Amino acid sequence: MNIRNELEKRADIFNKEMKKYLKTGTPKRLYDAAKHLPLAGGKRLRPCVAMLSCESVSGDVQRVMPFAVALELVHNFTLIHDDIMDKSRLRRNLPAVHIKFGESTAILAGDFLFALSFEAMQDIPIKPSVFKKLNNSLIQCVKDICQGQQLDTEFEKRKNIAEYEYLNMIQKKTASLFRLAAHGGAIIGNGSTEEINALTEYGNLLGLAFQIWDDYLDLSSSEKTLGKDIGNDIRNGKKTLIAVHALENTNNQDKKLLEEVMGNKDASERDIKQVVEVFKKTGSIEYAKKTALHYSRQAKKTLETLKDSEAKTVLIQLADYSIEREK
Amino acid sequence: MNIRNELEKRADIFNKEMKKYLKTGTPKRLYDAAKHLPLAGGKRLRPCVAMLSCESVSGDVQRVMPFAVALELVHNFTLIHDDIMDKSRLRRNLPAVHIKFGESTAILAGDFLFALSFEAMQDIPIKPSVFKKLNNSLIQCVKDICQGQQLDTEFEKRKNIAEYEYLNMIQKKTASLFRLAAHGGAIIGNGSTEEINALTEYGNLLGLAFQIWDDYLDLSSSEKTLGKDIGNDIRNGKKTLIAVHALENTNNQDKKLLEEVMGNKDASERDIKQVVEVFKKTGSIEYAKKTALHYSRQAKKTLETLKDSEAKTVLIQLADYSIEREK
Repeated sequence: MNIRNELEKRADIFNKEMKKYLKTGTPKRLYDAAKHLPLAGGKRLRPCVAMLSCESVSGDVQRVMPFAVALELVHNFTLIHDDIMDKSRLRRNLPAVHIKFGESTAILAGDFLFALSFEAMQDIPIKPSVFKKLNNSLIQCVKDICQGQQLDTEFEKRKNIAEYEYLNMIQKKTASLFRLAAHGGAIIGNGSTEEINALTEYGNLLGLAFQIWDDYLDLSSSEKTLGKDIGNDIRNGKKTLIAVHALENTNNQDKKLLEEVMGNKDASERDIKQVVEVFKKTGSIEYAKKTALHYSRQAKKTLETLKDSEAKTVLIQLADYSIEREK
Repeated sequence: MNIRNELEKRADIFNKEMKKYLKTGTPKRLYDAAKHLPLAGGKRLRPCVAMLSCESVSGDVQRVMPFAVALELVHNFTLIHDDIMDKSRLRRNLPAVHIKFGESTAILAGDFLFALSFEAMQDIPIKPSVFKKLNNSLIQCVKDICQGQQLDTEFEKRKNIAEYEYLNMIQKKTASLFRLAAHGGAIIGNGSTEEINALTEYGNLLGLAFQIWDDYLDLSSSEKTLGKDIGNDIRNGKKTLIAVHALENTNNQDKKLLEEVMGNKDASERDIKQVVEVFKKTGSIEYAKKTALHYSRQAKKTLETLKDSEAKTVLIQLADYSIEREK
């Protein structure tokens, strides 16, 4: 069993479903802007988690598709708005929506996808009373994501962030959507309370591992592999786990360098390289890897209560993959 | 019966309910930004329409409050994002959210209010199956508003807009939320199908009258009365009904002036005054007033099928008020 093939197989099924929600309309430019990012590819990890979670409790995967679409559209809506805030120019190897369509249309395209995600939710074949609960979970999740993104932005301007503050931030910004993906997949698949709880926790831990690994990749990958600006995080003063750890574990001279370069929009390539050297010297890159590994292991552990299945095996491999992937 | 008193009475009840949804939280800055505009006052016309619609079908007004909150929060969310797009600096006599809190936090505050509005919907005391329908109506309404705002922005860059295009734009951008207010109020109040249909149509026509009158006010009021930038619409090249009519009914020389000044961000006060003179000469300001009056009358007509009540009287007076108000 190859994890990439398993994910791609599900992503293909998912993409066909998502396209149904992204038909064109008037004004065309709004629809084009809204479709730009969702149709630019991507690994569809959140939909895959929802599908696998549903499968692992012997649920019919087809029933989970509108929910999977809702998750992916929420994810894309937040990426579009985040890219405006972070002034990111590239996303998935393409110009960000606000670069291609202008900021106004990008703000609206995000809002529109937000509405479309709630529209997709309406199509989940569940009882209205269950729908209402799951709809509320999505609402709470979006609130979390907004709070997490606000914290992330505020952290950029602060010099020191404690590790628990960082963890709280990525919990809201990233893990909550993975958590909801696994949670909803198990509910729609009619899992038992025990199964739902185990999978919810799995999604959460997977999300934490995934985000920490993402921070790591932003530093270690080439721009071409990742499809995002490199050095952007450092120039924005982003407090990744690596930065948080380095700031806490460095000598005064290096700390001064970090504080000068991090958050300096005009930092040179040489500045960026020096910061990365400090990150290496403090062992912060290794620390982030180790922490991601820790959450990945914990994630796998929560699956022990589930009965064996192909989907369970893929979920286990996904926890490994989330801290091995190169993009 | 004094319409202002009737509206204020309901706005007071409404404001107490809305505050329950705007408690503070973490990060404080996000909550402060999200609360800024909703708590800055405003006439609460959409909540009032929902409340009156519910009352007019003998419904318990308390049951409609979460829905009224959802409407007002959606309205405020769109205002926050619109003000970023339009580069408006003032709103309700206060700095716009993006001026006070910065653009990033303003984008997030809008997203957050969007989520809060769906959260308020969950509290409407109706059966889950009815909830699902009403929730869908809100989703479709937000999609309409996004489409309308995109059209409004695109029209700014176009030289000529036909009247039917303008009407389609304000239908989506403004009327759809008034329509939903009256529609939902009647449903939550357990109105008959005939009552629901009449009130839905009333809300729609009221919304059209309201928006056209709003365009008129932007030209004729003083900045202090309105709490918004004056001349902003002309500098942005906004295609109000007045502008649409003037562009269609002017001589070549004046048309050239309109095309030069409208959409010119650096237009002087003198330029603005000259444009207003052309608007007067073509009778476009009078035309807009007349058109608003037409929709207001039609709105009142739809109420004829309703049984007499205090709420019905207020709704009739509201249709008059919507084209008489000075702010």
